[in-house]
Amino acid sequence: MKSLAASVKPIIWKRDRLLVLDQRELPRRTIYLNCRSAVQVAASIRDMATRGAPLIGCAAAFGMALAARSGSKTSVEKAGAVLLKSRPTAVNLAHAVAAMLKLARKTPETSLARTLEAAARHYFNEDLASGTRMAIHGAQLLKRGSSVITYCNTGALATSGVGTALGVIRQGFRTGRVKHVYPCETRPYLQGSRLTLWELMQEKIPATLITDNMAAHLMITHAIDAVLVGSDRIAANADVCNKIGTYGLAILARHHGIPFFVVAPTSTVDLSTPVGSRIPIENRSAQEVLQIGGIPLAPFGARAYHFAFDVTPHTLVTAIVTEKGIVRPVNARKLKEICHG
Amino acid sequence: MKSLAASVKPIIWKRDRLLVLDQRELPRRTIYLNCRSAVQVAASIRDMATRGAPLIGCAAAFGMALAARSGSKTSVEKAGAVLLKSRPTAVNLAHAVAAMLKLARKTPETSLARTLEAAARHYFNEDLASGTRMAIHGAQLLKRGSSVITYCNTGALATSGVGTALGVIRQGFRTGRVKHVYPCETRPYLQGSRLTLWELMQEKIPATLITDNMAAHLMITHAIDAVLVGSDRIAANADVCNKIGTYGLAILARHHGIPFFVVAPTSTVDLSTPVGSRIPIENRSAQEVLQIGGIPLAPFGARAYHFAFDVTPHTLVTAIVTEKGIVRPVNARKLKEICHG
Repeated sequence: MKSLAASVKPIIWKRDRLLVLDQRELPRRTIYLNCRSAVQVAASIRDMATRGAPLIGCAAAFGMALAARSGSKTSVEKAGAVLLKSRPTAVNLAHAVAAMLKLARKTPETSLARTLEAAARHYFNEDLASGTRMAIHGAQLLKRGSSVITYCNTGALATSGVGTALGVIRQGFRTGRVKHVYPCETRPYLQGSRLTLWELMQEKIPATLITDNMAAHLMITHAIDAVLVGSDRIAANADVCNKIGTYGLAILARHHGIPFFVVAPTSTVDLSTPVGSRIPIENRSAQEVLQIGGIPLAPFGARAYHFAFDVTPHTLVTAIVTEKGIVRPVNARKLKEICHG
Repeated sequence: MKSLAASVKPIIWKRDRLLVLDQRELPRRTIYLNCRSAVQVAASIRDMATRGAPLIGCAAAFGMALAARSGSKTSVEKAGAVLLKSRPTAVNLAHAVAAMLKLARKTPETSLARTLEAAARHYFNEDLASGTRMAIHGAQLLKRGSSVITYCNTGALATSGVGTALGVIRQGFRTGRVKHVYPCETRPYLQGSRLTLWELMQEKIPATLITDNMAAHLMITHAIDAVLVGSDRIAANADVCNKIGTYGLAILARHHGIPFFVVAPTSTVDLSTPVGSRIPIENRSAQEVLQIGGIPLAPFGARAYHFAFDVTPHTLVTAIVTEKGIVRPVNARKLKEICHG
């Protein structure tokens, strides 16, 4: 299967180090961080230099491969613990670390480096293939000439290189199903304006940015055919955890009768979490809300919340697009069937 | 009646000039612009140095008084035309200009300056009194110890000095009905973080800022008792035009069964506009979305929408609080009855 990867490379594996595109500097500058250890990879995840649930899974796998270069299982175990703590919500990270740890435990220390490197490369390539399959499945849900709203960044920059929701949009554009894209800016990190809009412009896909609070007005004044988002963790009952603001957007889509599609690989599904309300929601620093690029937006000493994610109940989701097929109707039974299929 | 005005003064009348607090510089700096002509007042409105539907009505009235100092009715007519064009959506501005023009036409040129100055002062004082009445009426709608969400800035800085929705919140806090306030930051101008949070902190009212896209998550994870907003124009059928994002917030409040209150003086009601969809929505520059304080947030050459307002259908509004009483149920008949009452 031909990969539908975009030209931008969010991480580049160099055997003795992982180059991590510093997404905080986009779209102004393209800078790669040289991560020579699992601790450095974990820091790049924690500090949001790299982000996106599938991508941080890939980065973590390479982080484990870097630790394995020591030839010490203890180092690999320690690396796993550090990486796991870097961000709590996305389950892909936990999946990747668990798979690499399991492999390390049954591998002799002499071949630890080679085996974990091969496994990390495989994990990365599987994500590419999975993105391509989701793009093809998902585009079929869209009618010709659709105008779509999307949220946060779910493109090449959030994955190994294809994307989830934005991969579907890119494929939809290539096949005439997507005509215009409205990315929401996605406060406070502005992944929509900085990253998604940048990816769309690079691919010459017609796009108009909106602030998050314009979505409802756009839904009633413009013909919006679908909303597409990604996910950081999907519970067993098909509740969807994703970037803060997704839940509100799903309510608005339902109110206006617009289909709401979630695009995520099955590695995002966490069958051990029964319902969405049990997913840990990361609380990040209030400073990330109170200032932008060092410029204060609020009075000195102000208080703010910074919930990084929210949970959309499965009843508000029209379909979940995975690399193994489409979950529709969206419920626990159908989700399990697709995951095991 | 004792005025409930806050300590901050958004405009100060000095007979030969109007001092206009430059709200774009808040909360960092307190700078007043010296407006010596109606053209300068209009520029301060157009460029958002001053804003808030009731306040721009007051500023326009003083702008007309400045033009009247020439003793020429032609100058006053020209001033009216310039002020009317400064911002299209808020009807208070049009009301104020029309009232001043009507007065000017029946006043001899020799007493034009004195008469229009007195009328502008009266208009300002009426707005103060009206804010006080709304605060008292509106606070009675809140139960003891309420946590409330508010939007944009509807406080002293949006009016002659009391406020609309924020006036109700301030009075609610004084009387034990409001315990905690969650202002939405209100992109792209951030009136919530820059102005509302500043006013709340000055009055020592417990407040935690949220980004606009956190409202739905807050509604389901925290006990939110009410949402309070202002308005820039209310149509005859009671549809409410207000800052972009209000419509979405009203849908979210309805979805969670939370009362949604609009607080606005009857000067905001435009009985000549039959329904909300007929209200002109100001489209402002995309640059105001694409950059913040001169820092680009999006790629060079990006496109963005900047709808400044949206319309909330009256069916999503629980009650409209005016200085003449409470419109509830929210419909055309009840609105007209209160306006004429």
